Amino acid sequence: LEDGNYSVIKETLEDLHIGDIAEIVEYVSKEDRVAIFSVLDVDEASEVFEKVNEATRNTLFEELDEHIIVDIIRELPADDAVDVLSELPKEKARQYIRKLIRIEPALTAKIRYLMRYEEDTAGGIMDPVFVAVKADATILEAIEEIRSQEIDEDFFAVYVVDNDGKYLGDVRIRKLFTAPPQTKIKDLIEEDRIYVTVTDDQEHVSNTFSRYDLITVPVVDQENRLVGRITADIILEVAKEEADEDIYAMAGTDPDELENTSVFNAARIRMTWLAPCLLGTAVTATVIFAFKDKLFVGNFSYVFGIAMAFVPMIAAISGNAGLQTSAIIVCGLASGHIAAERLKQVFLREFRIALLVALACGIIGGIICWGLPRIVTFDNAEQAVEISALDIRVTLAFSVAMFSAIIVSTTLGLLLPFSFRKIGIDPAISSGPLVTTANDSISVAIYLSLTLLLVSL
Amino acid sequence: LEDGNYSVIKETLEDLHIGDIAEIVEYVSKEDRVAIFSVLDVDEASEVFEKVNEATRNTLFEELDEHIIVDIIRELPADDAVDVLSELPKEKARQYIRKLIRIEPALTAKIRYLMRYEEDTAGGIMDPVFVAVKADATILEAIEEIRSQEIDEDFFAVYVVDNDGKYLGDVRIRKLFTAPPQTKIKDLIEEDRIYVTVTDDQEHVSNTFSRYDLITVPVVDQENRLVGRITADIILEVAKEEADEDIYAMAGTDPDELENTSVFNAARIRMTWLAPCLLGTAVTATVIFAFKDKLFVGNFSYVFGIAMAFVPMIAAISGNAGLQTSAIIVCGLASGHIAAERLKQVFLREFRIALLVALACGIIGGIICWGLPRIVTFDNAEQAVEISALDIRVTLAFSVAMFSAIIVSTTLGLLLPFSFRKIGIDPAISSGPLVTTANDSISVAIYLSLTLLLVSL
Repeated sequence: LEDGNYSVIKETLEDLHIGDIAEIVEYVSKEDRVAIFSVLDVDEASEVFEKVNEATRNTLFEELDEHIIVDIIRELPADDAVDVLSELPKEKARQYIRKLIRIEPALTAKIRYLMRYEEDTAGGIMDPVFVAVKADATILEAIEEIRSQEIDEDFFAVYVVDNDGKYLGDVRIRKLFTAPPQTKIKDLIEEDRIYVTVTDDQEHVSNTFSRYDLITVPVVDQENRLVGRITADIILEVAKEEADEDIYAMAGTDPDELENTSVFNAARIRMTWLAPCLLGTAVTATVIFAFKDKLFVGNFSYVFGIAMAFVPMIAAISGNAGLQTSAIIVCGLASGHIAAERLKQVFLREFRIALLVALACGIIGGIICWGLPRIVTFDNAEQAVEISALDIRVTLAFSVAMFSAIIVSTTLGLLLPFSFRKIGIDPAISSGPLVTTANDSISVAIYLSLTLLLVSL
Repeated sequence: LEDGNYSVIKETLEDLHIGDIAEIVEYVSKEDRVAIFSVLDVDEASEVFEKVNEATRNTLFEELDEHIIVDIIRELPADDAVDVLSELPKEKARQYIRKLIRIEPALTAKIRYLMRYEEDTAGGIMDPVFVAVKADATILEAIEEIRSQEIDEDFFAVYVVDNDGKYLGDVRIRKLFTAPPQTKIKDLIEEDRIYVTVTDDQEHVSNTFSRYDLITVPVVDQENRLVGRITADIILEVAKEEADEDIYAMAGTDPDELENTSVFNAARIRMTWLAPCLLGTAVTATVIFAFKDKLFVGNFSYVFGIAMAFVPMIAAISGNAGLQTSAIIVCGLASGHIAAERLKQVFLREFRIALLVALACGIIGGIICWGLPRIVTFDNAEQAVEISALDIRVTLAFSVAMFSAIIVSTTLGLLLPFSFRKIGIDPAISSGPLVTTANDSISVAIYLSLTLLLVSL
């Protein structure tokens, strides 16, 4: 495709959308990336630069000349420039800002203003460009005002402010077309004033969009002054990002991994999750050893053999039952559906479901534990006799242990997401491998204790 | 709050948004639900009816009078009416349509037209109401046209069609304000014509929104005629729904569960996932029994004891390593980031990461398997001597088995999402408990075979 023939590249790219060019840039070689940027106009280049994923942008920061990057950042809207700069190490970002301030003082002031807000708040994701008109203007005056603002971004609602810039409400664009031109803006204001505040968490903003089916929302500061707007495309990105984060947390890995081109670093990130699991299962092994000295003598050795074969079952089933519960809670918390008023209702419901599930698994598990050894093992009659004297108790121990382990793991699955959230940990971690491994140890301990207890009777 | 004082309820509700009223309706009692609907205006009632979750709507269908429901459906936009009706049993939906056709023939025709499309395609989620103008109109004529269409929904772009209704492109609304009124529409058309086709899957539509940062997209039929539009609020709902589906699949449960008010049904849904896991772990138990007869004699009984204690570790770690890989693939497939062109790159990367992870876990696991029995068990010297003669081989078997099991489970985590997708199963299932349980059996079989092999040497 690309062997140095720049004019061909240029022609090919001209027919493509920014989103498509960005995707190509993400997976061509270093040389091709630099070649693509050399043929793009600076405004296209800046859009592509903003659209590629973080990993690619990191490499671009290194591969492109510094003055090209400065030109690219100059072309970006202030909010995108902030996003891009905040991915850099602080010192590096300051360096670019110092360069920018000389050539683009107005943009740099905006960037500095936006940089005050945390990345994952309404202030951090908002676009400071919006269309605002005064309440006592007529439609004609408002349209004149919009024209004079020369905003080159799309807008989807016209915001109304008072003389201090305080937010009063919005006017649907279709009203500007359909109402008589002399109508006062204040007569068209929508009564339902939905807005968010700069300090609101982006999850809250995302839930506000879902709750009220929004396309765009105004952002106000602490004094209720209109300072920006957030559009649904940003929120869609946020929602997908947060969903991916939850899925990665459940699998015990990190979205950062993908931003990392190095295989070694990716393996390192995965190991930071697997290493605690190794320790957790070492605890499980220790639990088994602790019982081995007691179960592993005389007649009991057969019991131990049978009991051991069912350890994976009790660990997997109780772990999964807990996971089912915690996934429901994690999704409910993320979407805001589980609010404080509903807690009692949710707990009661989950606890009842857990009782039914534990009962069913206890019974089915007991039947398997009783039947399976008879079907698959012990050709020799002596073993079979010894076993049959014990196996009702082994079965009973397994059945009760399965029931108890599921109740324990479901309770953890119910409570941990709330506790994690309270102490500022992502609730999705409670559906991850760390909690599942901890669950393993607990259920195996319950299981072997019960077996020992019943068999010793 | 509510003890029959209807005028108080009415006043309270008047200050609230539809989204908030819907949330209240979702968790009050049957009587309060009916009371709330009796005080709402029919247009508010229809908006609330559409906004509440499916479980609540199901109960409303039973609790409200049939003529009230017909009135509510009459007020709904056609696309929402279709969504609501398609939740009903077919016969029941037809009954309502027969009632509607007499009083609202135009709406019913629209409903019937929309019902042809599958629920999860662009046609199924689109809104058939849009603003379209002709290419050779001037801005003034276009605005007159928009006014005469009396559309009472918001619009965020003006679509341009030719005389056959074929889609030509869109005009940004700000252009209508800022260009001179005599400008021809065709001179304002955006060159980047992004649209979707009625038969496109909603996941594809959602990825189109992300890729091009859209707020709204036009929908065309097979003949390229403009037939509707999809706005970002619908896509946000779709994206959240699909993310939740993935998380539920990973946890081994079903979003249907939440739509189900009965605790018994919820438990039944969870059991349909746990039951195959019970069978899967029964296979693991059978694998262990198969080896037990060989490992469980003489000296080997000690080996068996040690080996058994590490079964949870090898099952958990290999399962989790596979899960990490499959989660990356599942998210990549869902977002469209893993396209055919990148397959080789993705496979190579994942395989390299797997090698590193398997190596690290093999070594750490081996160290734990060698050290742990020395620390926590065997007070009695005789056992310790017997063990030490064997434990290097046990350790080696565990270490190699851990490595192999991780390679196998990672390969499954890499390949299964693609295979599942190919045969039409949700790829997220491959990150779920069923695959993890199957993994357990495989890794335990590898582990015990290797132990037997090395110990018998």
